[in-house]
Amino acid sequence: MRDVVVIGAGMTKFGELWDKSIKDIFVEAALRAIEDAGVKQIDSMYVGAMSSGLFVGQEHLGAVMADYLGVTPIPATHVESACASGGVSFRQAFLEVASGASDIVMAGGVEKMTDGADVTEALATAADQEYEVYQGVTFPGLYAMIAHAHMKEFGTTRKQLAAVAVKNHRNGSKNPNAQFRSEITIDQVLNATMVADPFGLLDCSPVSDGAAAVIVASMDVAKKLKKKPIKVLASAQASDTIALHSRPGITTLGSVVNAAKKAYKMAGLKPSDIDLCEVHDCFTIAEVVVSEDLGFFKKGEGGKAAEKGLTAIGGKIPINTSGGLKSKGHPVGATGIAQIIELYEQLNGKAGDRQVKGARIGMAQNMGGSGASCVIHILESGK
Amino acid sequence: MRDVVVIGAGMTKFGELWDKSIKDIFVEAALRAIEDAGVKQIDSMYVGAMSSGLFVGQEHLGAVMADYLGVTPIPATHVESACASGGVSFRQAFLEVASGASDIVMAGGVEKMTDGADVTEALATAADQEYEVYQGVTFPGLYAMIAHAHMKEFGTTRKQLAAVAVKNHRNGSKNPNAQFRSEITIDQVLNATMVADPFGLLDCSPVSDGAAAVIVASMDVAKKLKKKPIKVLASAQASDTIALHSRPGITTLGSVVNAAKKAYKMAGLKPSDIDLCEVHDCFTIAEVVVSEDLGFFKKGEGGKAAEKGLTAIGGKIPINTSGGLKSKGHPVGATGIAQIIELYEQLNGKAGDRQVKGARIGMAQNMGGSGASCVIHILESGK
Repeated sequence: MRDVVVIGAGMTKFGELWDKSIKDIFVEAALRAIEDAGVKQIDSMYVGAMSSGLFVGQEHLGAVMADYLGVTPIPATHVESACASGGVSFRQAFLEVASGASDIVMAGGVEKMTDGADVTEALATAADQEYEVYQGVTFPGLYAMIAHAHMKEFGTTRKQLAAVAVKNHRNGSKNPNAQFRSEITIDQVLNATMVADPFGLLDCSPVSDGAAAVIVASMDVAKKLKKKPIKVLASAQASDTIALHSRPGITTLGSVVNAAKKAYKMAGLKPSDIDLCEVHDCFTIAEVVVSEDLGFFKKGEGGKAAEKGLTAIGGKIPINTSGGLKSKGHPVGATGIAQIIELYEQLNGKAGDRQVKGARIGMAQNMGGSGASCVIHILESGK
Repeated sequence: MRDVVVIGAGMTKFGELWDKSIKDIFVEAALRAIEDAGVKQIDSMYVGAMSSGLFVGQEHLGAVMADYLGVTPIPATHVESACASGGVSFRQAFLEVASGASDIVMAGGVEKMTDGADVTEALATAADQEYEVYQGVTFPGLYAMIAHAHMKEFGTTRKQLAAVAVKNHRNGSKNPNAQFRSEITIDQVLNATMVADPFGLLDCSPVSDGAAAVIVASMDVAKKLKKKPIKVLASAQASDTIALHSRPGITTLGSVVNAAKKAYKMAGLKPSDIDLCEVHDCFTIAEVVVSEDLGFFKKGEGGKAAEKGLTAIGGKIPINTSGGLKSKGHPVGATGIAQIIELYEQLNGKAGDRQVKGARIGMAQNMGGSGASCVIHILESGK
């Protein structure tokens, strides 16, 4: 496989973008990425989106976006893996460049969720329709079950979960593209309106609109453009049972463990080599479980680690320096690409007030559903 | 890029499969493909489907199908390009093996359309929602406009269009997996219930359920398995404007012309080298236009060619020996893979009563919407 590098990135602000269509925001992010990369053309593009059919009545997003971006007749493909759609978009672009079929490929992601669709119902199509959703459970309930199991098994507390949200809002307050730039307190999280026991409103990522895009290219292209190469050291993906009840346990996410194992092997690295990590904190418990399953902390220690500040900027392993899904927002198809953008900015030393000093190796962990799919990428800053 | 070959194929019968779920039919096709390939495991899989969210309320099809097939934790990704979803599924599997990231990959496709959703409305999400669908036009109307323009410009007749349907039903009558195995006459086509002038019911492909899967692998794997190598000579994809009204003309499909140009170049072949071709005959006019845009006939001559029998088995260029979308059925996500399966069977000399004698090189042309996306593959039978 050829070496693949990220040479440009662009995104919209995440939030309630009521004055813009799904096409407007995708094109906005894409044009920024192309301009940032300094390329005149792209050979191919991917659009990660979870359910534009249900959210805005438009499928065929690859062609739609190629058309509005003005890049026809290039190949344009829509990929989906629920909330990991952005991650698989990046992976497909990586594989296409690695194969030698193309030299410069755009990996984009987008979701427009606030235009009137029943969001919880649409998102629930990422769970098992027959055995989960028809019984009345949706994602807050599924992750709440994971939280209760984790609390029972390891003594994780609501206060530890709240520490995740507080830390992510603190990071997000320094991110100009974040949906919520307000800092919050532990008490605010603990006293927020209950959504699904043990989650209050501030344990949950928001409903968002947004788009993000990055340009990946062969090392040769990066050298010609005189870009500092942000190299993709690993791209790994894994699946798990779609329904939570089919798994041997629910306090470990098998797809995360499996994808991480492959990613570390491909990169020749171990957890302690990672300088910062963006993880999929759709609910506070997700960040806790994933921080364990990625090997940063022992199983059961993720909550305590968050409470002690080990995942804060300046801590042992800074997690979600962007603000994460919780504060930056979670337009599902765009999330996996926005994670890559945070790594790109950090590894280029351009993350402003939230910069991790000396960051050289970053990881992004994006997952779909209650972990039925997981995509992990490791990026390294070249010299 | 590494050489990539097709080593196994399997599909369900296409039709109204009311006693089976979308998971049942995908798994049925996938198991047949795995058995046919004679492999013990697959490294990764793709699922092409257009809109399972709207048709059956289930997204996240990659993970869903990996789970029900019992192959977790392998990577499993859903790809979509409207009715070309199967074609892009095959292309992504091709790229993954070509890159060296995986050795054995399944490319599948599925759609369950007869379970109660408003099919015409769901399919219309492949057109431009803002500028086409909101004005009341759906796909029969869009292709009817193409037909009228072709009739006006080149004198194509309803009888010539009918000849396409009659030929495809004749071929499909010899295909055990076809939805309609009845032969029809020119008069029946001309006198069928009007759908959208100039199309009668028998000018239109049906609404179908079905699944199809193929196994692609590196040449090394094929040699170890002692398989006759059916090699992928070319994989090409192109996009075009999503709305018909944005194009310079509507009697030529730009995405088909562009993808064909790339495919012929990649394979080092010209139209006369192709022994048989599966084309995307969602409506009779589509086969006529595409047979011209692929270079088999001069622009405007496609209707006459069909009427003269040049596209029949035994003719100059046998088109849709499987029965095509018209007779075999059109479960949209499965169609592109079913086309590859027809080539696989023909190139292996196992197409029974519809065998093209001495077939060595086959082409599959799969498109989405009114041609906003097109994927073309060329396969060659090894010795």
